[in-house]
Amino acid sequence: MYELGVVHRNIVRGDGAAADALGQLGTATVHEALGRTGLLKPYMRPIYAGAHASGTAVTVLLHPGDNWMLHVVAEQIRSGDLVVAAVTADCTDGYFGDLLATSFKARGARGLVIDAGVRDVRTLTKMAFPVWSKAISAKGTVKATLGSVNIPVVCAGALVDPGDVVVADDDGVVVVPKAMVNKVLEIARTREANEGAKRAKLASGVLGLDMYDMREPLARAGLKYVD
Amino acid sequence: MYELGVVHRNIVRGDGAAADALGQLGTATVHEALGRTGLLKPYMRPIYAGAHASGTAVTVLLHPGDNWMLHVVAEQIRSGDLVVAAVTADCTDGYFGDLLATSFKARGARGLVIDAGVRDVRTLTKMAFPVWSKAISAKGTVKATLGSVNIPVVCAGALVDPGDVVVADDDGVVVVPKAMVNKVLEIARTREANEGAKRAKLASGVLGLDMYDMREPLARAGLKYVD
Amino acid sequence: MYELGVVHRNIVRGDGAAADALGQLGTATVHEALGRTGLLKPYMRPIYAGAHASGTAVTVLLHPGDNWMLHVVAEQIRSGDLVVAAVTADCTDGYFGDLLATSFKARGARGLVIDAGVRDVRTLTKMAFPVWSKAISAKGTVKATLGSVNIPVVCAGALVDPGDVVVADDDGVVVVPKAMVNKVLEIARTREANEGAKRAKLASGVLGLDMYDMREPLARAGLKYVD
Amino acid sequence: MYELGVVHRNIVRGDGAAADALGQLGTATVHEALGRTGLLKPYMRPIYAGAHASGTAVTVLLHPGDNWMLHVVAEQIRSGDLVVAAVTADCTDGYFGDLLATSFKARGARGLVIDAGVRDVRTLTKMAFPVWSKAISAKGTVKATLGSVNIPVVCAGALVDPGDVVVADDDGVVVVPKAMVNKVLEIARTREANEGAKRAKLASGVLGLDMYDMREPLARAGLKYVD
Amino acid sequence: MYELGVVHRNIVRGDGAAADALGQLGTATVHEALGRTGLLKPYMRPIYAGAHASGTAVTVLLHPGDNWMLHVVAEQIRSGDLVVAAVTADCTDGYFGDLLATSFKARGARGLVIDAGVRDVRTLTKMAFPVWSKAISAKGTVKATLGSVNIPVVCAGALVDPGDVVVADDDGVVVVPKAMVNKVLEIARTREANEGAKRAKLASGVLGLDMYDMREPLARAGLKYVD
Amino acid sequence: MYELGVVHRNIVRGDGAAADALGQLGTATVHEALGRTGLLKPYMRPIYAGAHASGTAVTVLLHPGDNWMLHVVAEQIRSGDLVVAAVTADCTDGYFGDLLATSFKARGARGLVIDAGVRDVRTLTKMAFPVWSKAISAKGTVKATLGSVNIPVVCAGALVDPGDVVVADDDGVVVVPKAMVNKVLEIARTREANEGAKRAKLASGVLGLDMYDMREPLARAGLKYVD
Repeated sequence: MYELGVVHRNIVRGDGAAADALGQLGTATVHEALGRTGLLKPYMRPIYAGAHASGTAVTVLLHPGDNWMLHVVAEQIRSGDLVVAAVTADCTDGYFGDLLATSFKARGARGLVIDAGVRDVRTLTKMAFPVWSKAISAKGTVKATLGSVNIPVVCAGALVDPGDVVVADDDGVVVVPKAMVNKVLEIARTREANEGAKRAKLASGVLGLDMYDMREPLARAGLKYVD
Repeated sequence: MYELGVVHRNIVRGDGAAADALGQLGTATVHEALGRTGLLKPYMRPIYAGAHASGTAVTVLLHPGDNWMLHVVAEQIRSGDLVVAAVTADCTDGYFGDLLATSFKARGARGLVIDAGVRDVRTLTKMAFPVWSKAISAKGTVKATLGSVNIPVVCAGALVDPGDVVVADDDGVVVVPKAMVNKVLEIARTREANEGAKRAKLASGVLGLDMYDMREPLARAGLKYVD
Repeated sequence: MYELGVVHRNIVRGDGAAADALGQLGTATVHEALGRTGLLKPYMRPIYAGAHASGTAVTVLLHPGDNWMLHVVAEQIRSGDLVVAAVTADCTDGYFGDLLATSFKARGARGLVIDAGVRDVRTLTKMAFPVWSKAISAKGTVKATLGSVNIPVVCAGALVDPGDVVVADDDGVVVVPKAMVNKVLEIARTREANEGAKRAKLASGVLGLDMYDMREPLARAGLKYVD
Repeated sequence: MYELGVVHRNIVRGDGAAADALGQLGTATVHEALGRTGLLKPYMRPIYAGAHASGTAVTVLLHPGDNWMLHVVAEQIRSGDLVVAAVTADCTDGYFGDLLATSFKARGARGLVIDAGVRDVRTLTKMAFPVWSKAISAKGTVKATLGSVNIPVVCAGALVDPGDVVVADDDGVVVVPKAMVNKVLEIARTREANEGAKRAKLASGVLGLDMYDMREPLARAGLKYVD
Repeated sequence: MYELGVVHRNIVRGDGAAADALGQLGTATVHEALGRTGLLKPYMRPIYAGAHASGTAVTVLLHPGDNWMLHVVAEQIRSGDLVVAAVTADCTDGYFGDLLATSFKARGARGLVIDAGVRDVRTLTKMAFPVWSKAISAKGTVKATLGSVNIPVVCAGALVDPGDVVVADDDGVVVVPKAMVNKVLEIARTREANEGAKRAKLASGVLGLDMYDMREPLARAGLKYVD
Repeated sequence: MYELGVVHRNIVRGDGAAADALGQLGTATVHEALGRTGLLKPYMRPIYAGAHASGTAVTVLLHPGDNWMLHVVAEQIRSGDLVVAAVTADCTDGYFGDLLATSFKARGARGLVIDAGVRDVRTLTKMAFPVWSKAISAKGTVKATLGSVNIPVVCAGALVDPGDVVVADDDGVVVVPKAMVNKVLEIARTREANEGAKRAKLASGVLGLDMYDMREPLARAGLKYVD
């Protein structure tokens, strides 16, 4: 159940430098560092190839077909934030276009994650303003019903608290609880550090079967080779 | 992000009597009393017509294709509870069948809400053990990976905290935060109390247009009648 | 594009007796008589098994999450009508429940076809008020935006003009343009008249291959039998 | 790739008595006995609650919107067969209705599994002719293009060879390769034999945790209890 | 219900210059100018990023898996037309490829909007022949059944009359009734004219809250700020 | 039903030169040459525009959320192979990323076709390693359960035998049984050879109606022109 009609102005934001660092590592690595949780549903796709962003979440709860609160949330954006928008029911309308993107950008937003539709994608692409959405639609919205800003929201199946760190790229969107940001960063960096050596080995023709010592557990599990 | 591998044994449960009373009022009324929030996605359907249940939520987080934790959660069920099961990724496998239902029932469970599949629906129907699920599937699951019990979960798009009151019937599933149960019950009862008189008026041919005094606001909004 | 904010009070209705007769013949037969057109998308399902209805269409255009116009359309219902509701964007909210059904019934409505969700399905079933919808959802709606009544609407992929005859049963929903009602009825009756004899033959073990003289065209098309 | 325009008249059928026995055990048990494979996609649903059937597969490959080959396959049905129909592309049209059901029944068919739509479901239900399909639709089909009968087909994601045993009930549809029927039956019976005792234990309040000795492996996997 | 087997050769086309002007304004602006109606479902997507076109609709009704009528409609294309293709049932087959595109282009077509699939998208992209479709599929079609040309069709949920103006770009497809083209153009231009100034203000950091005077209505609706 | 826990090391591969030649012709042409069969479902999409590949199939059967067998299959890849991965239940997890791609590439793989999700798409794109999948998802997988390598699999609705030739491009994925590769190549080449002349004619304004002599059969089918 959501608290409606409220804007929380003072939220505790996760560490911005850590958010930047996690953004460099990418969603796949961060999601693994989180124990394979925290991922938004894979129907959330970037509006252009190569989109990537990370930042601290400013959240907004919207009603179907109504983007009034996107104007309210704009005022709460600080540099380094990424807006996360949830809707109280499934909706593919185009809530967000180039005017709002201009405003969000001017406020310092890194991008938008919205469990609904967006429009003006050609202009958004030219502006290099990254958006992850579940639809693209020219359909406009009204401005009639109050939602809330900076409350915990469920966006595309994931709980996002205001101030959490959000990482988004071509592979999807992942949310890191602000209290865990540094720990997750550390795990993610360790994981990443190992990847270069692995990549070189695999490129040389070494098999994962050998590099990861999988032959014995596979045999134990009963794998049989037939010629 | 979820806390994995943990079972919280002592949870604060919402008021059981209020849960019963909310169950009598039904999901549509309770959802309205909650300001039209708290509803799980409408793909959650009862496995038989007429299924209805309410109770305090015991939550469980599962992995795709793995029902191990359903055995773990069984031990945490108390009479009057309703189990709410979330999965870390989309899955339609049949996690739950007549054996688990027998166990859940013996522990006092009112029913199951699971964002995945179930099986043995013919037997479950005969047992009158109500389940709301997103699929029915004979596909079985393994018992290999730890999830958690009694942590906050996102189930079918809604956040469910352990101990929250869950109401489910033919119209869907709604979750009431435990702290709000009594207030919501009061609002729901007031709403319900008015419905009898309204129903009688409408049955006699009185129009909602008149009963709700809609003609004037419709005209103000610009509605035109053409003969 | 739709005309918004208008209620057409005087519409020409198709022949009511023919609507009744078409209802007896069922959607499969009527759809064939229409040259296999006129069918609403198959996601439109009755809320209970055995639901069947036919009548003259009173149409209403709704906005997502807003059922205000359902109260407006109620006044335009005459005995023998069936309400056809379209929405300007995809929406699964529960627009219609037992109070509106009570009102519609009191006005003489035969049922409702709605390209959205409904609720109170248990009560609607008890009332034997048939509804065809694309979803069942406890989610309520607001009353804020004007649509229109008795304009041509696209409902679940089919164009429905006010006054057209609508036939609905377990197999789906079909719309018959009012100008063609009698011709379609004649074709449908002829078709139906032949079915009894065919059924008896097939029940006795005669093959469709022989009854419909298909062996020769199949051979001509190149069908080969292999032992 | 499919062989088109061919009817194989002589196929080797799996053991009919075993097919009957597997039908009694149900899809969930059979699917487990098969090592959790062999299941058709869960979108395949019975047209009425309580439908159940098993038999030897007579297969047919259809084209989208064309049911000509259903008449051809009718001739190949023997008592104890169950027809499995695949389509070369996604289609929800109503390929099969009461006339074909009358013919199939007269030939001894146990039921139909079709990866497309059916119609006349009210009559089929009255006839107690069970059908598993992905859609219900009044939309009729033409008779214009050749498919094949009794070739291996992919139906709802599963490979079905002519003569394989198919088991279908409320939980879905499972296919058992004819060469494995007796072995699978034996495994399934053993599994089933254990269930009665388990059910009694669970009904008495014994937990699966104890009955299946799960506590130790759960602890080893790291499960922690928090009070 | 559709009229089958007919080609209307003489249709009244909307104003071509206005179609061009509307194309410059884009679907989001045109859709707003139409009072937020007239949009095809958002599953209609361009086959390449940056596709945009506008023109007068030449319509064609196809059957599932049958593209015969695309050859018939080719002859009816005049320079400045855009072909709108509807299908009588859901189908994702690849109805249209580079040969038909070559023909359509030679006849002066601006593009194709088809509620089905297309193929040869690599070549179509090189040819810069824009197509909006619901699927991409190599699956070919037959040429066996008559549809119609230049009748009113329902395409992706929207009614399109022959000669209507269609505008399509990255945000989707919108249809403007030919009688309203000039009025809609005027509204759209006014809307567009205001956007430049707004964009500049927003870019300078002015909030929509202030620019649109939303603070007072938000407060009246009950919005509360919490520090 | 699948054989589990087995790796077939010696498979008969279709002709590599023919696989190359079919790849040049593209999926649309090859699919036509196969009599319009052999196509995987159109939800299988390349991860970047312009991806194209052909090769001999090395198959692997995976379990939901488990990519262990992708390491096993890597060892069986020979230069010119294309890996085809099926899953025993619907799953969108990201089974495959840049490390596995590095390994597959080092082994000589032409690409991957997987009825599930992939991740690291930005890196895969830079590597020009083509993948066709049904989803993109950062969600990782475990390594716990045995599947099989080089058994016949059903991938996205199509049966793929080890060694079959697979052709994939922007239009989708098609499988050619290895025994038919040369015959299909011949038909496909003949088809292709005719296209150049046709394209030139159509580009000059000749209509398909005339080039394909369709006017007479259309008239015979009853097509009427109305002025």
